[in-house]
Amino acid sequence: MIERISILGTGLLGTSVGLALRAAAFKGSIAGWNRGTEQGQMALKMGAIDALAADATEAARASQVVVLAVPIYATLDLMEKLAPVLGPNQLVTDVGSTKRVISETAARLYNTPERAAFLPGHPMAGKERGGAALGDANLFRGAVWLFTDDLAAKRAPRGVELVKEWREWVAEMGSKALDLDPVRHDELVAWVSHLPQFTATALSALLEEEVGNAPELKDVGGRALREMTRLGASPFSMWRDIAHTNTDAVERVLLALEQRLALLRENLRTPELRNQFERANKFRRE
Amino acid sequence: MIERISILGTGLLGTSVGLALRAAAFKGSIAGWNRGTEQGQMALKMGAIDALAADATEAARASQVVVLAVPIYATLDLMEKLAPVLGPNQLVTDVGSTKRVISETAARLYNTPERAAFLPGHPMAGKERGGAALGDANLFRGAVWLFTDDLAAKRAPRGVELVKEWREWVAEMGSKALDLDPVRHDELVAWVSHLPQFTATALSALLEEEVGNAPELKDVGGRALREMTRLGASPFSMWRDIAHTNTDAVERVLLALEQRLALLRENLRTPELRNQFERANKFRRE
Repeated sequence: MIERISILGTGLLGTSVGLALRAAAFKGSIAGWNRGTEQGQMALKMGAIDALAADATEAARASQVVVLAVPIYATLDLMEKLAPVLGPNQLVTDVGSTKRVISETAARLYNTPERAAFLPGHPMAGKERGGAALGDANLFRGAVWLFTDDLAAKRAPRGVELVKEWREWVAEMGSKALDLDPVRHDELVAWVSHLPQFTATALSALLEEEVGNAPELKDVGGRALREMTRLGASPFSMWRDIAHTNTDAVERVLLALEQRLALLRENLRTPELRNQFERANKFRRE
Repeated sequence: MIERISILGTGLLGTSVGLALRAAAFKGSIAGWNRGTEQGQMALKMGAIDALAADATEAARASQVVVLAVPIYATLDLMEKLAPVLGPNQLVTDVGSTKRVISETAARLYNTPERAAFLPGHPMAGKERGGAALGDANLFRGAVWLFTDDLAAKRAPRGVELVKEWREWVAEMGSKALDLDPVRHDELVAWVSHLPQFTATALSALLEEEVGNAPELKDVGGRALREMTRLGASPFSMWRDIAHTNTDAVERVLLALEQRLALLRENLRTPELRNQFERANKFRRE
């Protein structure tokens, strides 16, 4: 039974995992670590973690489950650092937004008889701004929590039981688990997550140049404009690693949207415009 | 003092105007007319109008203020039909989403010594679906209500007082009036209203083809995806006239977004991506 969890990275997601575990009546210990101490202190103050560790490796060593909740490249660094110091009775999982590179690294470093199990995970939840202070016990409620390479993690010595139990906690936090192949994962999230984000960023950046100097004109757009640009507030720091580790898929989906916008533009006065509206209506009806 | 208003077209906006006037304690009569009787009966049942007229012209003749709340081409038809039968003690105003064509028609047919005043209006409020049943007394609360050619309408015989009083009712309904030149209006709404709509339509239509057959994959996108595609539910019937009467401006803004998306796509791994995120952040901060 899982009694000792550590959360490495107590930003929005890490803090929310701690709060959600407590809300789901997890009775064990939750140690936290964060690169900068301010976010760690905040997570501690909020009750997301019981103790703030000075050293990520020490916190991980003392845990049965290690949750990596840092940006993707930082996740890869921690995976390298932790693999040789953890053992076969431990499970490492993460919350990173792309999974191909993390899965490849896991295959290289984990899931062997001497090493810890690694279960790549990705809760489809977040906010347009990060930080421990926005941590929320209900963040994962109703969300899908994606896993890749569940079978590989189960081949590790204690993989079957630790993976099963962690998936139960994910369900207790209110999420629905869904298993995907890692390459398919990255293609899918390029469509349903990265494309909406980059579209909102492009739209917001464009509008900043066009109407940014006239705040009264921004009010004109009302709810529709606010909604379509809300994700424009997302910080680059959250998205840089995604752009770097899912470049090909994001390029493809952006090009597809450029072409679709051109199709609308060329058909503003033809019957094709109706087809496009009807297709869009269908997406929202289903 | 305005005591008799007629609302021609009792869809979402017309019904909401009636409900908002009543909520703002308008004590006079509100007659309604609608091309199909079903929406008219619904508006009557909801208390947005006191009486449902069989004939638009008769309802308009008996009113001091006539509110046109039909699609743009239907607005132009009613403007033609009503101009010769209304007189200098009357004000006609509308709620259409583009203003250049309506302003040109008003200049040709209204605001002369023998004719009614015409004040082109455009409340920046709506929902992604239309219909009287969604009518809402608070729809205009906090919204901007755009006017064009206020000065032309004031040159009509009773223009000054009727325009002033109608603007007071707009304020009572909770909206902030803003005056714009009609061509500038159409350019501005192309950026802050039409571009967000066509972007959501393009994104939704594209995603319908890519993931539409797999409902479980649509869940993966979560709140961000739902928000960025909500306007995808907007019916073509609401947007056809906009595409036809603001084609040049909409073409320009769509092309600008295509180019901006291409800029992001070509810079997923360069420092330019940070600039674009920062510009987008700035738009949301102001």
